[in-house]
Amino acid sequence: MQDAVLESMPAAYAYPLLIKHLLHTPLSQTPDQEIVYRGDERMTYRTLGERVARLAGGLAKLGAQHGSTVAVMDWDSHRYLEAYFAIPMMGAVLQTVNVRLSPAEIAYTINHADAQILLVHRDFLPVIEAIRGELESVHTFVLIDDMDAEACAHTIPFADEYESMLAASEPAYDFPDFDENTRATTFYTTGTTGLPKGVYFSHRQLVLHTITGMAALASPVSGQRFHRGDVYMPITPMFHVHAWGMPYIATVLGVKQVYPGRYVPERLVKLVRDEGVTFSHCVGTILHMLLNCSEAKTVDLSRWKVIIGGGALPQGLARAALDRGIDIFAGYGMSETCPLLSLAQLQPGSETLDPDEQLRLRCKTGLPLPLVDLRIVNEDMQNVAHDGRASGEVVVRAPWLTQGYVKNPEASAQLWEGGYLHTQDIASIDAKSYLQITDRIKDVIKSGGEWVSSLEIESLISQHPGVAEVAVIGIKDDKWGERPVALVVRKPECAVPVSEDDIRQHVLAFSETGRISKYAVPQIVKIVDQLDKTSVGKLNKKRLREQFAARAQEESAS
Amino acid sequence: MQDAVLESMPAAYAYPLLIKHLLHTPLSQTPDQEIVYRGDERMTYRTLGERVARLAGGLAKLGAQHGSTVAVMDWDSHRYLEAYFAIPMMGAVLQTVNVRLSPAEIAYTINHADAQILLVHRDFLPVIEAIRGELESVHTFVLIDDMDAEACAHTIPFADEYESMLAASEPAYDFPDFDENTRATTFYTTGTTGLPKGVYFSHRQLVLHTITGMAALASPVSGQRFHRGDVYMPITPMFHVHAWGMPYIATVLGVKQVYPGRYVPERLVKLVRDEGVTFSHCVGTILHMLLNCSEAKTVDLSRWKVIIGGGALPQGLARAALDRGIDIFAGYGMSETCPLLSLAQLQPGSETLDPDEQLRLRCKTGLPLPLVDLRIVNEDMQNVAHDGRASGEVVVRAPWLTQGYVKNPEASAQLWEGGYLHTQDIASIDAKSYLQITDRIKDVIKSGGEWVSSLEIESLISQHPGVAEVAVIGIKDDKWGERPVALVVRKPECAVPVSEDDIRQHVLAFSETGRISKYAVPQIVKIVDQLDKTSVGKLNKKRLREQFAARAQEESAS
Repeated sequence: MQDAVLESMPAAYAYPLLIKHLLHTPLSQTPDQEIVYRGDERMTYRTLGERVARLAGGLAKLGAQHGSTVAVMDWDSHRYLEAYFAIPMMGAVLQTVNVRLSPAEIAYTINHADAQILLVHRDFLPVIEAIRGELESVHTFVLIDDMDAEACAHTIPFADEYESMLAASEPAYDFPDFDENTRATTFYTTGTTGLPKGVYFSHRQLVLHTITGMAALASPVSGQRFHRGDVYMPITPMFHVHAWGMPYIATVLGVKQVYPGRYVPERLVKLVRDEGVTFSHCVGTILHMLLNCSEAKTVDLSRWKVIIGGGALPQGLARAALDRGIDIFAGYGMSETCPLLSLAQLQPGSETLDPDEQLRLRCKTGLPLPLVDLRIVNEDMQNVAHDGRASGEVVVRAPWLTQGYVKNPEASAQLWEGGYLHTQDIASIDAKSYLQITDRIKDVIKSGGEWVSSLEIESLISQHPGVAEVAVIGIKDDKWGERPVALVVRKPECAVPVSEDDIRQHVLAFSETGRISKYAVPQIVKIVDQLDKTSVGKLNKKRLREQFAARAQEESAS
Repeated sequence: MQDAVLESMPAAYAYPLLIKHLLHTPLSQTPDQEIVYRGDERMTYRTLGERVARLAGGLAKLGAQHGSTVAVMDWDSHRYLEAYFAIPMMGAVLQTVNVRLSPAEIAYTINHADAQILLVHRDFLPVIEAIRGELESVHTFVLIDDMDAEACAHTIPFADEYESMLAASEPAYDFPDFDENTRATTFYTTGTTGLPKGVYFSHRQLVLHTITGMAALASPVSGQRFHRGDVYMPITPMFHVHAWGMPYIATVLGVKQVYPGRYVPERLVKLVRDEGVTFSHCVGTILHMLLNCSEAKTVDLSRWKVIIGGGALPQGLARAALDRGIDIFAGYGMSETCPLLSLAQLQPGSETLDPDEQLRLRCKTGLPLPLVDLRIVNEDMQNVAHDGRASGEVVVRAPWLTQGYVKNPEASAQLWEGGYLHTQDIASIDAKSYLQITDRIKDVIKSGGEWVSSLEIESLISQHPGVAEVAVIGIKDDKWGERPVALVVRKPECAVPVSEDDIRQHVLAFSETGRISKYAVPQIVKIVDQLDKTSVGKLNKKRLREQFAARAQEESAS
């Protein structure tokens, strides 16, 4: 009885999981640690703390309050990091706007999220100028200006400029306590079909993602670790799934952080060299570009750890990276999952595996993080065997998955059918618990009564020394249902360019050893100049299928 | 509006922080990893999972249900680990009974916690036999038997024996979802005054303590790390603050675990050697005992990492451990705090510090863990300066602190006065954020208008090569208010035993260099045979003060 009385009292002990609590240890334990922007601006964590307070104070003056949505359009910067903290910490919602969307899509997402304040970098003024008439909810614009480009003409009535707003505010702000389930962030997914869909995450979810991600990333025996001595630089944009949540993890670790601004391959490589970057994450196509830019030829990359996500890590790319000394491995997640779900970390003892076997593990989709309840299931939601062969859809529960899509109950209910989040990825799990995505539900190729993994064929083709990039798509086939087609971009530097037949023979060899089925060998291989990508750099297979079908029709018509 | 509708629906996405979720990754990723008991019994994590289910099934048959309390009296064992999971996971409360309390106190705590089922090791049958008439709530007894001691005569009507109960149950159990704030564990603090007080922790609190502790312990650059490749053995009892929560962390990491049974110094050292133990935690007095047992002389301890807690880590002990190659450092926490609050980890760059400076850092109280909001305050709850000199009481907020004392609203309100948990520890914080406890509020010696830290003087005296153990207490003094008295146990192996005057001169030297004030030099030093300790091995200063006062009175009377 007495306990019941006690427990109904206002709870002195209550500790909501709020983003502000992530700052206790870094601000006190590493106040002099550096945060660098593009190599030419640098500040300390102490200053970060003050600027977070100033940003909140400035936004409050402009009318932001609990429940407001503040949208940001910026390159990867210390300012974005400040927004990651200040906006949720004051009880508002941070909308990270995907600046690679079309102007019409950007207008749609800002309206849909009901953003009232927009912080926008000068580089995006033409976009805002174009869509200004369509913006329904934004009442206040704040200019972000790097002062290194010529001021362009515009008619936007800016209420303030970011730095002057901060200068006019106090370096302290009384961030309140509130419910940990308060929405902290929102952003829009970039599917290849339909309108962008908004996902959203609460303070509780982001704190749990941060601490669990930190635990998972730090705990390998050696290598592949994100630890207190690292220097961090994201190379996945901060508008996309909180740059994998890594800036929050980096901040709690108290490490030196480097924000590269707009992605220019030469600048990224120089930053790795000059700032001593040791830990990054990016998509495979970007790493491919970095390794092949002229600047990279002379830079020592042997202290660099890189997680590859946003798609499978091709073994060819992994080998090229390992040859440069890069400690590369795959990670897995999606917009709906905050994003971290699994990491292809080496288990203790794997250090002694032969290099090829290690490479294979590094390219797997990975081992689920603590607290992640991940299953592969058939269409009746029954588990399939963990034998490395049987495949099923990846469904998942974890403390940090989006509760649904913003203002879209139908899609939300579908996402969460049966109480698990449906990733729409097809995967197998081997006896050592490594997950391996074999395809997207919509990209899997059904040929001759079998499911052929487009990703596996891509991985095999990518290992050919003459291949720069590859996409494998399914096309309709009267006899087999579907057949795989390979679209290949050649490596420009090869003396003897790879031919379509070379590729076919290369894949055929794998089929003859039994590694893949005969249905998986592409009968058609096309050399192309480039492959269509989505705004976040993934292969746009829907478009590729359409293009291929259109070209086939043209050819048969002519 | 649509969102509001969605959010009021039964939440498919809801993920309560329940202890069962800690098992997802270890059971799937390291099913073949070993858990060892005393070196002669061993099982795999796969078996752990099955035995956790069997234990829950067996207890359910005996009447345990949601909200029941199940008490355990056992040595450190795989069975205790099973209880850590199974009992909370079925919705019941695990009471870990302090077997070092007096029989009357044990009866008091079991009654006070309202335990209905008691699992008790054969070694404690004489205690249960003695208090059985006083036990009010227990209706069912289960025997735990190592089968290696002669069965003693008893009259307790056991409902079952642990292993036969498990054998009769199913290796699967449908652990339900429930509110994450459900109480998971309770145990009683062992203060030197008054009745034992019960603290309690919820599923949410234990999950957050586990994940954050894992993150903090894994993230140093090198050394002092608890990582996936370690072999873990606790040497603080599992009845006391969940053995610092480390068994939960070890399980999520999926490491080999070694449970030593009853603490016999020779056996502990042999287990370190034979099982390859690399990570442990204990109180200073136990490590002192281990290092000085005959078995230890010939064992290589250079792969062993040890956290010292439950009191300051004396520099003398730290040096002795480092000389043996042990990677030793201090940790801080208490029964009320689950317990982890801080760890004396070396910051990046500290590896290059000179050995004495490193030693000093390892012996500090440490750096607070992520999410821990730790302050040192004066009597008006105002922060004192972080200059390494000013001292105040340590008050703290964190997501894993006891909500209060069981059925004791007055003490609970006092514990949480002002919205922070009051540790009653006095500390300073230096410019690098290292916390340093200087004393307990009740043990601090007020002399000549100054606060003299008994712990600091103990630390200085412990560095004398002839000193095995030391306690510094305050005694009443008409002129100065209080004066420090040092009680010293000599090292038996020294050829020339240290004298009382040697000790005084040793401390005086530190006073002359200004390191401590002149009030801190004990005018009275007494060589004694042993020092009175509490049931968890801490110096019992209250008793030491009483003993000293009584002896002084006797001497003046005679």
